[in-house]
Amino acid sequence: MPIYKAPLEDIGFVLNDVLDIGQIARLPGYEDATPDLVMTILEEAAKLCENELQPLNRSGDEEGCTYENGVVRTPKGFKEAYDRYVEGGWQGLSADPEYGGQGLPHTVSFVMEELMNGANMSFSMYPGLTHGAINAIKVHASDELKRRYLPKMIAGEWSGTMCLTEPHCGTDLGLIKTRAVPADDGSYRITGTKIFISAGEHDLTQNIIHLVLAKLPDAPAGTKGISLFIVPKFLPTEDNRPGPRNGVMCGAVEHKMGIKASATCVMNFDEATGWLVGEPHKGMRAMFTMMNAARLGVGMQGLGVATVAYQNAVAYAKDRLQGRSLGGTKAPEQPADPIIVHPDVRKNLMTAKAFTEGARALGYWVGMMIDVYEKHPDPRVRQEAEDFVALLTPVVKAYFTDAGFETAVTSQQMYGGHGYIREWGMEQFVRDARIAMIYEGANGIQALDLVGRKMPQNMGRLLRRFFHPMQAELAAAMDEPALIEFAGPLFKAFGKLQQATAIVAQKGMAKPDEAGAASTDYLRIFGLVAVGWMWLKMVKVAQQKAANDDTANAAFLDGKVKTARFFMQKMLPEVDFRFKSLMAGGKTLMDLDAAQF
Amino acid sequence: MPIYKAPLEDIGFVLNDVLDIGQIARLPGYEDATPDLVMTILEEAAKLCENELQPLNRSGDEEGCTYENGVVRTPKGFKEAYDRYVEGGWQGLSADPEYGGQGLPHTVSFVMEELMNGANMSFSMYPGLTHGAINAIKVHASDELKRRYLPKMIAGEWSGTMCLTEPHCGTDLGLIKTRAVPADDGSYRITGTKIFISAGEHDLTQNIIHLVLAKLPDAPAGTKGISLFIVPKFLPTEDNRPGPRNGVMCGAVEHKMGIKASATCVMNFDEATGWLVGEPHKGMRAMFTMMNAARLGVGMQGLGVATVAYQNAVAYAKDRLQGRSLGGTKAPEQPADPIIVHPDVRKNLMTAKAFTEGARALGYWVGMMIDVYEKHPDPRVRQEAEDFVALLTPVVKAYFTDAGFETAVTSQQMYGGHGYIREWGMEQFVRDARIAMIYEGANGIQALDLVGRKMPQNMGRLLRRFFHPMQAELAAAMDEPALIEFAGPLFKAFGKLQQATAIVAQKGMAKPDEAGAASTDYLRIFGLVAVGWMWLKMVKVAQQKAANDDTANAAFLDGKVKTARFFMQKMLPEVDFRFKSLMAGGKTLMDLDAAQF
Repeated sequence: MPIYKAPLEDIGFVLNDVLDIGQIARLPGYEDATPDLVMTILEEAAKLCENELQPLNRSGDEEGCTYENGVVRTPKGFKEAYDRYVEGGWQGLSADPEYGGQGLPHTVSFVMEELMNGANMSFSMYPGLTHGAINAIKVHASDELKRRYLPKMIAGEWSGTMCLTEPHCGTDLGLIKTRAVPADDGSYRITGTKIFISAGEHDLTQNIIHLVLAKLPDAPAGTKGISLFIVPKFLPTEDNRPGPRNGVMCGAVEHKMGIKASATCVMNFDEATGWLVGEPHKGMRAMFTMMNAARLGVGMQGLGVATVAYQNAVAYAKDRLQGRSLGGTKAPEQPADPIIVHPDVRKNLMTAKAFTEGARALGYWVGMMIDVYEKHPDPRVRQEAEDFVALLTPVVKAYFTDAGFETAVTSQQMYGGHGYIREWGMEQFVRDARIAMIYEGANGIQALDLVGRKMPQNMGRLLRRFFHPMQAELAAAMDEPALIEFAGPLFKAFGKLQQATAIVAQKGMAKPDEAGAASTDYLRIFGLVAVGWMWLKMVKVAQQKAANDDTANAAFLDGKVKTARFFMQKMLPEVDFRFKSLMAGGKTLMDLDAAQF
Repeated sequence: MPIYKAPLEDIGFVLNDVLDIGQIARLPGYEDATPDLVMTILEEAAKLCENELQPLNRSGDEEGCTYENGVVRTPKGFKEAYDRYVEGGWQGLSADPEYGGQGLPHTVSFVMEELMNGANMSFSMYPGLTHGAINAIKVHASDELKRRYLPKMIAGEWSGTMCLTEPHCGTDLGLIKTRAVPADDGSYRITGTKIFISAGEHDLTQNIIHLVLAKLPDAPAGTKGISLFIVPKFLPTEDNRPGPRNGVMCGAVEHKMGIKASATCVMNFDEATGWLVGEPHKGMRAMFTMMNAARLGVGMQGLGVATVAYQNAVAYAKDRLQGRSLGGTKAPEQPADPIIVHPDVRKNLMTAKAFTEGARALGYWVGMMIDVYEKHPDPRVRQEAEDFVALLTPVVKAYFTDAGFETAVTSQQMYGGHGYIREWGMEQFVRDARIAMIYEGANGIQALDLVGRKMPQNMGRLLRRFFHPMQAELAAAMDEPALIEFAGPLFKAFGKLQQATAIVAQKGMAKPDEAGAASTDYLRIFGLVAVGWMWLKMVKVAQQKAANDDTANAAFLDGKVKTARFFMQKMLPEVDFRFKSLMAGGKTLMDLDAAQF
């Protein structure tokens, strides 16, 4: 059976030593969130994840969700684990105290998302969707709706969904057909079918609050005519208990490749009662509030699953005896050496280590910037932080989930034939990780968001939030002898990123197809360079701490330096490939007639 | 439901125009195998695959195999389809006429392997294992054993297996524990447990003939002490009917990630009666006869599944309406454009097309060389062909299955959320394709075979079979204005392959870990350059045919030229990345203590 251990040592290193989580406690409203308190909370979160959620991961996959006459049952143990989650107040960790939340920084719940997804990705879908719905209601709904729904949702007693996709449209939401007709009492009657609704129906909570995109009768065509509605499964009574059943039913549960313990539902709305969230026809804006947070959360899924897959690959590589080291027998007392002696096994493990630890640092940094842009007193700093988050969101979503999937695949590979057998659990990580590349905007869409929206936004202002500080840090590192072996290759890769940016911006202006053709190569370059930047930061800190005779974790710090070296030498050169492909332009993609495929 | 169409037009182009299949009919013994006959047979094979095997692919995956008290049942329809396969004489297609085979070239059954795996990879496992067992018996067994087993197996009435792996050893077969004790009658009593035995038990045939690796009592330690035995499920009677049950039982069927309709069995041998195949302690040699053919077959699995995944991605991309072309609306009469207008969708489709068509040409070439080395009258030509096959076997196995899996993943991605739903069938291709990277020697082992065995063999003679003709062809192409845009990038990539070869050979001699560290990068470079060579060949032929006013398939030929261009500009640059990673050496892989992971 697979293991999972929350990587607390690495988390502490990233939060305290690399990112200075202490700065969050200096933001107004977060005074209590000292580094010590944050780590104490995360240690508790780790216990929940390791002891309650992870043991249900394999069994949940085998059992899946069951559907009968509109009723959905989650696998054995999920309800009890969810109750523990609610009892611990985890749903409200970073939610508004006005509605019963604990008001902790988003960074804390962001880290917790990684841990929960490492332990049990299917389980994490239920609270994750509620989290997104809470955000949308908080930002866009009326005070009355907030008072009615937020306390129950923040307590975890009611859960949430995002009802966007319809059978004929996912990416292109302008095509949706679900209709909302005004009723006399200020509410609406919602009719239509939504598909792929995660947590659309289940047995974990007393009520389920759907956030539904629909069109009003007078709606303009396309995405400018979409409105957002709250549609509860049970209409709340005056004293806020689940009352009469609303006209929304689960029609089926999808049979999927993975995350089988997460109920993915077809939801039928038949004159269901709903209430408008925000202004008419402005639903896409509210949806993006959910989507952006959700996209970062999906990035954390990629990281979480990659981490648990890597941990199990390491455990197996140390344990499995097979063959002898090419450099001479390492374990003469055993019939064979552990496979961790083999260079190619090492290459896979090092790639996984370098990706997960680099991505962790980058992901947490983006998470911290959410707190900065929500709480910092200086509007200029807030704006900078918001720009940074907006720019990095598609990178975190797509690069973390692509590389997270690749990590799951190579980790499975370490097990040989055993990796293909369900019992060992490695193939589940591959199946689960796969969805993260698809939902919340397929990764190709993320790449288009990066080149088509984030890159040109405000004349390139978002890009400068990344390029300027990186440029300065690189220039300084190039002057430090101990850093030059890391900064050198990164400097070149950064140069390619800048050059690619200029080319894409210029070509894309004249011919949008060229930007589209460049987009996935560009995003991958961006991801590699961004993670490379984190490795430069980490190696700097590790060298400093090691020099300060921090012998307690000398091996840990030494590992950081050596992994940074591996990243620069073995992984960063992928930039060369993607750059060359990007520079070749888009003509060869578009030259064939459709019939020639 | 997924579609599958045997790519007969492309097969004809590769066999007739690129590889000159006519040369096979000039080999003694293959006089009847004219190009026309070969295509006629493949058209019949296509019908079997499209009409009988492919319709069982999804249902077979959903139903899987069932196990009860040692009895294994294949999914509904498999027995009937297998009977059709046997009735058609397909098992004996390229088998020895002396034992009832049709004596056609291996190339024909090699192509058929691609088609069968494209249609139904699980189904193809049953005849595929029999094929491997027939080869081993034919080459290594006594005449008596041949007479007893080959006719039944070639007819498809009895099937075969390869019993190698044990719970504690897969790659490192020197560790096997299964024992063989001589009996008085010249037979042996085999005792031990084998795992991951494909087709180990099933309901398709009257008898199952296991080829089992075991150790004799006086066996030397390690792989030099392994012998090969024939162990039938039912002991044949004098008149060669299945007689008394032998001491071999299926203990369980594995629950796997994919190829669920292929029974992967735990086989328990309890004093089972067996007969020695070949000499005592020389079983590894016989096993490699099976393995090498099987490895090429697994490469064809990668190609087959990639092809069907690609075909379905194309069909969906033409059908699914979502968003508008960035370059201006393409289908104004529709609510949205088909997604094939989007550059990033194109990039995935082009990558799949360029890989599958290039790999098809390379794979078939290797297949043809098997016929050449078996039948050519000139021993020098035979040796050259055998060297070529030996060199390319690990490349075909590992590169085709890695890139085949990648193709399945990107093809699934084209479907968005629908790709994750079982019903659509795309996720099955991913799950099925995954095993091909693992079994018959995990791809890391293939890479070691390439750098550690094939590269140094006979002072680099095998490499010269590839390098010299490619060098000559490239040099000639560099002088042709119409080819230079293709030959130019390939020439540079070829230079990197040569340089990498020199470095790996030199470093690896001094320090074997360095060769191990370079191996996967090296194999990938080799695969890309080899497929690039095929694209150069194909574009040359396509240009010539197009110039000859071959208007009947002008669009097809034009597609070849444009796909070659895409390959050179967008895919071949991966060589730059792998080369840089390889040149960085192995130190960063080995620097960490195991405890630092």
